[in-house]
Amino acid sequence: MKTLIRGATVVTANEQDTIIPDADVVVDNNIISYVGPKKEWVEDFAKVINGRGKLVAPGFVNAHGHAAMSLLRSLADDVPLMYWLEKRIWPVEAKLKREDVYWGTMLAILEMIKGGTTTFTDMYFFMDQVAEATEETGIRAVLARGLVGIGHMSEQGLEESQQFVENWQGGADGRISTMLGPHAPYTCPPDYLKRVLALQEKLDVPVQIHLCETRDEVDRIQKEHGVTPVELVRDTGLFQAPVIAAHCVHLTVDDIDILREFDVRVAHNPGSNLKLGSGISPVPDLLKRGITVGLGTDGAASNNNLDMMEEMRLAALLHKGSRMDPTAITARQALAMGTRESAQALFLEDVGTIEAGMKADLIMMDLQKPHLTPQHDLVAHLVYAAQPSDITLVMVNGRILMEDGNLTTMDEEKILFQAQQRALHLVEEKEDD
Amino acid sequence: MKTLIRGATVVTANEQDTIIPDADVVVDNNIISYVGPKKEWVEDFAKVINGRGKLVAPGFVNAHGHAAMSLLRSLADDVPLMYWLEKRIWPVEAKLKREDVYWGTMLAILEMIKGGTTTFTDMYFFMDQVAEATEETGIRAVLARGLVGIGHMSEQGLEESQQFVENWQGGADGRISTMLGPHAPYTCPPDYLKRVLALQEKLDVPVQIHLCETRDEVDRIQKEHGVTPVELVRDTGLFQAPVIAAHCVHLTVDDIDILREFDVRVAHNPGSNLKLGSGISPVPDLLKRGITVGLGTDGAASNNNLDMMEEMRLAALLHKGSRMDPTAITARQALAMGTRESAQALFLEDVGTIEAGMKADLIMMDLQKPHLTPQHDLVAHLVYAAQPSDITLVMVNGRILMEDGNLTTMDEEKILFQAQQRALHLVEEKEDD
Repeated sequence: MKTLIRGATVVTANEQDTIIPDADVVVDNNIISYVGPKKEWVEDFAKVINGRGKLVAPGFVNAHGHAAMSLLRSLADDVPLMYWLEKRIWPVEAKLKREDVYWGTMLAILEMIKGGTTTFTDMYFFMDQVAEATEETGIRAVLARGLVGIGHMSEQGLEESQQFVENWQGGADGRISTMLGPHAPYTCPPDYLKRVLALQEKLDVPVQIHLCETRDEVDRIQKEHGVTPVELVRDTGLFQAPVIAAHCVHLTVDDIDILREFDVRVAHNPGSNLKLGSGISPVPDLLKRGITVGLGTDGAASNNNLDMMEEMRLAALLHKGSRMDPTAITARQALAMGTRESAQALFLEDVGTIEAGMKADLIMMDLQKPHLTPQHDLVAHLVYAAQPSDITLVMVNGRILMEDGNLTTMDEEKILFQAQQRALHLVEEKEDD
Repeated sequence: MKTLIRGATVVTANEQDTIIPDADVVVDNNIISYVGPKKEWVEDFAKVINGRGKLVAPGFVNAHGHAAMSLLRSLADDVPLMYWLEKRIWPVEAKLKREDVYWGTMLAILEMIKGGTTTFTDMYFFMDQVAEATEETGIRAVLARGLVGIGHMSEQGLEESQQFVENWQGGADGRISTMLGPHAPYTCPPDYLKRVLALQEKLDVPVQIHLCETRDEVDRIQKEHGVTPVELVRDTGLFQAPVIAAHCVHLTVDDIDILREFDVRVAHNPGSNLKLGSGISPVPDLLKRGITVGLGTDGAASNNNLDMMEEMRLAALLHKGSRMDPTAITARQALAMGTRESAQALFLEDVGTIEAGMKADLIMMDLQKPHLTPQHDLVAHLVYAAQPSDITLVMVNGRILMEDGNLTTMDEEKILFQAQQRALHLVEEKEDD
């Protein structure tokens, strides 16, 4: 089955930053088979989409998050981090049931599809439910069961991880990839990280870990182990595996050298880092050193949305402002971070740009908007001015998941109802205790 | 004529942060006459608006901007400030004609109304056109002719300012207020600022000025005059007038004391300050000292949108992150800055909250959205998660300017067309030179 998008302006987001006005995009099953100047086609298309006055860009790739935390959105804001975690988030999270994670994930996927995200990343629990939600909705996902290496769940976590990888790697028509998800060096001691590495060697999937998110984490590891968290993880051997490290806010120059040496990829989460008061990651330095940096929203409890346009904007604005350098991160770099660099950070080779041969994960945006007028620079518009509601079409793996605001795989009303009811119930339960 | 909004949740944004679920709001001509629990009304209303599942909040007050710069949106991004100004912005601005300013302002107002802004501030030229656009569209505005105290326009600027104030103060059914707009201490020498003060004493309107926007400005004034820009302006006597100072990024402790002493109000522009690499204003310190701080977008050329939700979000996130303190600016403080504090910063006493007796400047938002589900905290939603497209109704001075996405006073298609054509023409002209 072939689909033609006719006469749109294509922002390829490829290495050359190519922009093609009045272009045709042909999607052959789940692959982009042509991107280029408008042509007179002789073949029949199953569907022709009018792209006039529209922009086509790669779907966004959300490189770090915890989808079902959408149920905890706005539960606790503007409070110190440890109070947030210990008093507000963890007590409610401990009550999450299998079905809550399913509906929380559905809510997150709904928001992400409407906002143009075509691949998301999750590190959580009840991951079978997350994979089922992914399968049902048609989105692409990179999924890891979160692992905590202390306490009674540490063994079970490894077993469930293996099962999860074996059951779901390449699942949902190839839309699901899996990872191992050791939570962080402060929750996974060195010996446990070595066991994760042994499992990784057996399963051959990448690893996602939180790393150097807060000053407190760095201080704690330094005090306990006499090294930085990056050094600690390096010493376990884990960086021999393909690793994506989320946050990387507090890094030494040596840490950056280590990340570079082992080709550790980074998921930058500017919204979450700002909101939790974690600090500002030295992203311009990472980019200068040639480290692959993608973008993530983190969970909705610390953001409070899953809007990748906002993350691109924050990534571009924040480093300019904090370094007093308007060239620190350009719009083109921010767009790359939200698309192809995020894909590379997740070790996905075939999504993140609009080029022939890539998976057909794309968005179409309406440019006839006051905040997108005039149109001197469309990449600047995407990063600095666009809104999720400008998106009129979302395609993942060649399948249209949203068109003109209509969702093709999700029942929005039902998801909002279930999510709201379950969230209220969780909070009431907590208050009853 | 009376309008009833029935059964909405009202975020009053008043000093007590009152939130009233299932509330009625009555608008009597241009004034809010009742806000409180739902009642059985006996009187007839000219219009009843169903507020069920909706949120009512004050319209946003944009405390600093240059509306017609919307035509220069995305013309020049990610470049150093002086290059941006001298090579890209000023050459095009110099070519702006009266009609360009009119259509650029219309474009800005269109974007602002759709984004829930009910009062905007402008400091530009061809201000009669700005006032006419304000009169036609129904928005509220605080307008100043921008004054540069060096060069051939300095005298004419003062004359035009006086004329503008005399012609427009209280115009458009009271929706237009005027100010004097000396551009900045580095473009208005002390003697000129004294003449502005003399004119202010005669006309009795407030003054808006750019102040301490960049490190370069502070260094320059320090070198030329041996004092900080704040001290320089204080020494001219200008702070005896009611003054709102835009930016205030680079301040000494003494500067902050001076602003407090003279009750100088501040317009914080986080988006513009970040994008131009100007730096981060010490807003938490200003608030702790009791200084009134509102929020502004600045012009669209340095933002690149006029979205006050984004400014509230940036104000809340930026200071948490840069100070590593998640309590630095709360959602409630950010909402206040975008509404009542902005109004107070502009010396407007009767807008910025939903309370009986205030002008009926309000927005209604649809809460049935994935990114606003669940609803643990609506103020957090407004600041951290909401999008302009959630806004379903905008009322200014008791008149509905947008309802269910339909504009009542503006021809969107015509404005977008005019703005796009004029912007392209300006750029082509420049390239022809």
